[in-house]
Amino acid sequence: MTSIKIAGIGGSLRKDSFNTKLIHQAKELMPHNSVMEIISVGNLPLYNQDDDENPSKEVMAFKDSLRSSHGVLIVSPEYNYSIPGFLKNAVDIASRPPVDNVLRGKPVAIMSASSGAFGGMRAQYHWRQVFHFLDMKQIGRPEVFVNYAQEKFDQSGRIKDESTITLIRDLLNHLVNAAIEYSHIQ
Amino acid sequence: MTSIKIAGIGGSLRKDSFNTKLIHQAKELMPHNSVMEIISVGNLPLYNQDDDENPSKEVMAFKDSLRSSHGVLIVSPEYNYSIPGFLKNAVDIASRPPVDNVLRGKPVAIMSASSGAFGGMRAQYHWRQVFHFLDMKQIGRPEVFVNYAQEKFDQSGRIKDESTITLIRDLLNHLVNAAIEYSHIQ
Amino acid sequence: MTSIKIAGIGGSLRKDSFNTKLIHQAKELMPHNSVMEIISVGNLPLYNQDDDENPSKEVMAFKDSLRSSHGVLIVSPEYNYSIPGFLKNAVDIASRPPVDNVLRGKPVAIMSASSGAFGGMRAQYHWRQVFHFLDMKQIGRPEVFVNYAQEKFDQSGRIKDESTITLIRDLLNHLVNAAIEYSHIQ
Amino acid sequence: MTSIKIAGIGGSLRKDSFNTKLIHQAKELMPHNSVMEIISVGNLPLYNQDDDENPSKEVMAFKDSLRSSHGVLIVSPEYNYSIPGFLKNAVDIASRPPVDNVLRGKPVAIMSASSGAFGGMRAQYHWRQVFHFLDMKQIGRPEVFVNYAQEKFDQSGRIKDESTITLIRDLLNHLVNAAIEYSHIQ
Repeated sequence: MTSIKIAGIGGSLRKDSFNTKLIHQAKELMPHNSVMEIISVGNLPLYNQDDDENPSKEVMAFKDSLRSSHGVLIVSPEYNYSIPGFLKNAVDIASRPPVDNVLRGKPVAIMSASSGAFGGMRAQYHWRQVFHFLDMKQIGRPEVFVNYAQEKFDQSGRIKDESTITLIRDLLNHLVNAAIEYSHIQ
Repeated sequence: MTSIKIAGIGGSLRKDSFNTKLIHQAKELMPHNSVMEIISVGNLPLYNQDDDENPSKEVMAFKDSLRSSHGVLIVSPEYNYSIPGFLKNAVDIASRPPVDNVLRGKPVAIMSASSGAFGGMRAQYHWRQVFHFLDMKQIGRPEVFVNYAQEKFDQSGRIKDESTITLIRDLLNHLVNAAIEYSHIQ
Repeated sequence: MTSIKIAGIGGSLRKDSFNTKLIHQAKELMPHNSVMEIISVGNLPLYNQDDDENPSKEVMAFKDSLRSSHGVLIVSPEYNYSIPGFLKNAVDIASRPPVDNVLRGKPVAIMSASSGAFGGMRAQYHWRQVFHFLDMKQIGRPEVFVNYAQEKFDQSGRIKDESTITLIRDLLNHLVNAAIEYSHIQ
Repeated sequence: MTSIKIAGIGGSLRKDSFNTKLIHQAKELMPHNSVMEIISVGNLPLYNQDDDENPSKEVMAFKDSLRSSHGVLIVSPEYNYSIPGFLKNAVDIASRPPVDNVLRGKPVAIMSASSGAFGGMRAQYHWRQVFHFLDMKQIGRPEVFVNYAQEKFDQSGRIKDESTITLIRDLLNHLVNAAIEYSHIQ
């Protein structure tokens, strides 16, 4: 029986970031029979269509990791009331030739953390419009906005707030269930 | 009398791009007593907050060019129904320390081109939410969506469609007028 | 075998409206074994939470029609770059007690017409955020924006543009397929 | 010296509503030399373009009140992650002939309250797209989201939270300053 693989993209390029902690926490909370592979996006080039013909090794490796996944988790900070450029750049690369769009049709879930009251909400709704374009299967519920993040993580970088952990588990369960369905229809 | 300087950001990293042609066309159509400096964003790193303390020379030069401008023109393709990552990355960098946010309070205009029917509209509305956060003075009218771009540029890369040229001139006039006002209150 | 029933909401309260023509055209193009019931929203009151306890006959009838449907088609003009108030009012009523939210979980598709270049796009993306909240199963493709509508309808109010008809049929097929699935899991 | 008049629209049709309390609170907090007239929208018909030629007395009175104002405050609940239909309906009516669009060019501010964590934010960003279309002068700062509203109002319906009162005063000051400028250029 094949294990379900979820590609985890996001966090922040900064080391001590709530969103980086959040993606690692999500990896730990994955349901049985599923694993998350956290895929780095910090070594990708700025997307340039002229490179489509001759993608770099980094781009090829990034797309290979996505291609072999059955679903995607985006853990996204909010920058300037929208999607961070560095993360959108990764999805722009993933959505392009050569070979194929490695996202289209796959289940996708999103979560975000912030020290403020709103938990990255404005970025999430912009992301949903991107997922709509990519024809991905969006997991709608629950929405996970980890607001006031400094109160919810302990010093080791783990979430200590039980209701947040329950929400994350719930979202991951929905994502993995959709990924199982996706793996059957492929 | 000081000339008004508008910073032009955008186009596409691809050489033969409608949006790159559009930003060069805009530069040619600038009103008297104003100039546009097109600022490259293709050599910027992916934004990483850990770099705020020690920005690279490229980041410093980029921010210096913006700092000395009286207004900003963004010429933005639409990628995956939203803002291109590479362009958002540039604005994310510009909005951050060290020193200052070089965008806040400045007039900003936006235009976009696409080969399709909608001319980049979906990206523009996401940009407007970013401008709102940055507390920039948005030029609201006219909206410039250069749709069916392949019919509107000639072989030399210039716009041959008169009504499009009129729209661009109109938008640039509004932008420069707001930049003049901004230069006085500084 | 039960026929699939789709509730059609929208058009415009104005008699000679492209969106009214569009919803009637959609009704004619429904796939075999499915029917569309066009539900009037023009006689509904402005939503007032104080009325939840004692809904009017019109509100009860409106919700009954929705309750018995297996899916929903919204045909929406765009007013002031967003959802028309009169149509949002109907959905606000449908989403409220008493008894139940008659929309949650159901498949939903959207289409729009306008005389301009953009076909109601800005309203559609606001609608999609509403559908997300209501946890409806959004049909993502194809997107149907009937732009330059005056060129696409004939004098009898029927669409004469074949590619538009194909798009509408395609969207309705996806909607009815999702409604069949929905009718099984109820 | 003419007093500045701000038209206040919103609250909720429900009597015991946080947003209704909020608009009354805003009226009390108006700066010197300015007044707010709260304009009822609950008696307006659903907008129907066929009525443009023969507007009802209620529509005429509603538009007259707006016409004589120097600025607008919208106090908006969030319904289903977007603008409430009943309030959008009022703005749809205000934006239409006969005579004139009584909103275009005027300063506009927005605030919202909710019992949840997010304070109506999703509605506010949809409203901003509407204001953009109407070419209104949006007050960008501060953003006023009265979240966890049940903790911020006392039993008499007044806001007891000082920092919220300060935010409201600040927004109203910006609105009235823009309205003064507007009254001069008319």
